[in-house]
Amino acid sequence: MADRISIVEVGPRDGLQNEAVALPADIRAAFIRRLVAAGLRRVEVGSFVSPRRIPQMAGTAEVIRRLPTGLDCRYSVLVPNAQGMQAAADLPIQEVAVFASASETFSQKNINCSIHDSIERFGPVMRMAAERSIPVRGYVSCVLGCPYEGKVSVSAVVAVSRSLAALGCHEVSLGDTIGLGTPHEAREMVKSVASELPMESLAVHFHDTRGQALANILSCIEAGVRTIDSSVAGLGGCPYAPGASGNVSTEDLVYMLDGLGLETSVNVAAAAAAGVFISDQLGHPTRSKVATALLATGEIGRSS
Amino acid sequence: MADRISIVEVGPRDGLQNEAVALPADIRAAFIRRLVAAGLRRVEVGSFVSPRRIPQMAGTAEVIRRLPTGLDCRYSVLVPNAQGMQAAADLPIQEVAVFASASETFSQKNINCSIHDSIERFGPVMRMAAERSIPVRGYVSCVLGCPYEGKVSVSAVVAVSRSLAALGCHEVSLGDTIGLGTPHEAREMVKSVASELPMESLAVHFHDTRGQALANILSCIEAGVRTIDSSVAGLGGCPYAPGASGNVSTEDLVYMLDGLGLETSVNVAAAAAAGVFISDQLGHPTRSKVATALLATGEIGRSS
Repeated sequence: MADRISIVEVGPRDGLQNEAVALPADIRAAFIRRLVAAGLRRVEVGSFVSPRRIPQMAGTAEVIRRLPTGLDCRYSVLVPNAQGMQAAADLPIQEVAVFASASETFSQKNINCSIHDSIERFGPVMRMAAERSIPVRGYVSCVLGCPYEGKVSVSAVVAVSRSLAALGCHEVSLGDTIGLGTPHEAREMVKSVASELPMESLAVHFHDTRGQALANILSCIEAGVRTIDSSVAGLGGCPYAPGASGNVSTEDLVYMLDGLGLETSVNVAAAAAAGVFISDQLGHPTRSKVATALLATGEIGRSS
Repeated sequence: MADRISIVEVGPRDGLQNEAVALPADIRAAFIRRLVAAGLRRVEVGSFVSPRRIPQMAGTAEVIRRLPTGLDCRYSVLVPNAQGMQAAADLPIQEVAVFASASETFSQKNINCSIHDSIERFGPVMRMAAERSIPVRGYVSCVLGCPYEGKVSVSAVVAVSRSLAALGCHEVSLGDTIGLGTPHEAREMVKSVASELPMESLAVHFHDTRGQALANILSCIEAGVRTIDSSVAGLGGCPYAPGASGNVSTEDLVYMLDGLGLETSVNVAAAAAAGVFISDQLGHPTRSKVATALLATGEIGRSS
């Protein structure tokens, strides 16, 4: 356990929802199949949000219906409310996720309610999930800073994490939504949350907006974190800094973990090829440096 | 001392020599002036190598003649041999650098002689520098891997580092030339060298070919390293993986160091602006993620 890292691939959701191009369901499903073939065992495959607000996630049910079942992979979807949970309930998924914020202003602007109300709203989602024995993951955004408020207090991060756990979330993913954090503050934040919740129930979610993601992850691993969110090709971006980098890239992360002697189930070259496939569909180069190097040395090719 | 990091800006040399476009002396001098204004106190301004082999470094003497003197900044130039040292000797520079390898094959292919012979060849350079009281920095390349040999033994790195120090180099910069290393092996390598040479005499030099540079630097800082090479805009590239990333970016490094509470003399926004200036001259976007975010949020503008 101590020598194993569980990677949660968020490319098909957090990655694609922040890309300029909305891809059709068959491409998204083909992408996910490649991710599973690359050894990813947890994949967030989409979300049930307003297709008017986030057209990139329209057709998530169709994506899921096109996925192979019975594989050694847990599919997850993001559900903002009971309506989303209803849409997800009868599909072959193994996890759902809810989304809260450590910043009051971000909560208001992003999901139009207070942090307290957002937690209240998850009650029905949790009950429906429990009835179906579907585990629920809780996201906390803005854990190391907010585009509106700047600094976010660690106590606010701890409070919302505790609320999500109390509600029944089996895991809390701590997200540096706009990529502001640096290694020691990331580690201290995680340690504060871990003083109230079991370390095994925590995940970290870094965006590479300022190039700090891998260094932050290294620091959090040294603090004991063993679950990490990432996206092949570094998909996504930052709505608050258009043109800036998105999620930390799965390939670069796995390259580091391999070097650290930490096991994952992921094949770097296959993950890189999946990232090149989807980047070609999106019309831009992969943002993974490992994938770029593998392409340059001919160790992987362009997708057909 | 423990809370201060000395950054050696290598953009005008290691960065520009690996860019596709050869820039004229006036542009290179304007670039260096911006680096000094951004607070960089050590800048490698060029090299005296064959202009046929490395046209990007042609006119280094002219670059140096255009630089302001008497500022709080040490200019350094790379000199491959006595002829190069002769060219540098009468210019207003405060340091020279020589270049060896930890890989026998890389030494042969890169500088056409064995590691042993390359060290021998530095004898006259060291004597000329000593006569003029110019300190000499020694580079060791391929410390975490070689494009020809693959793995490079730590004992080879220690041996060549010791030779350079014995020759009189005041500092040894340990370079992961092709960006293969990961954090723990980087730290262990540095600790091995530091068992023979004072930690204060060591620098680390990472290329971000596989996205590992900042995480590696973090690990080396935790081992005690306090001198770090970097380049604004992540200039350069990798001749062994065309299209891949070059030097770790100074801006992203300083952003991390600021967050860690480690002092540098560098202003991130001014360094980012210098990187945007030179990237515009080179005709590609800056490769610094911090600079990209600063451009996106309007905190810095395009250079005029």
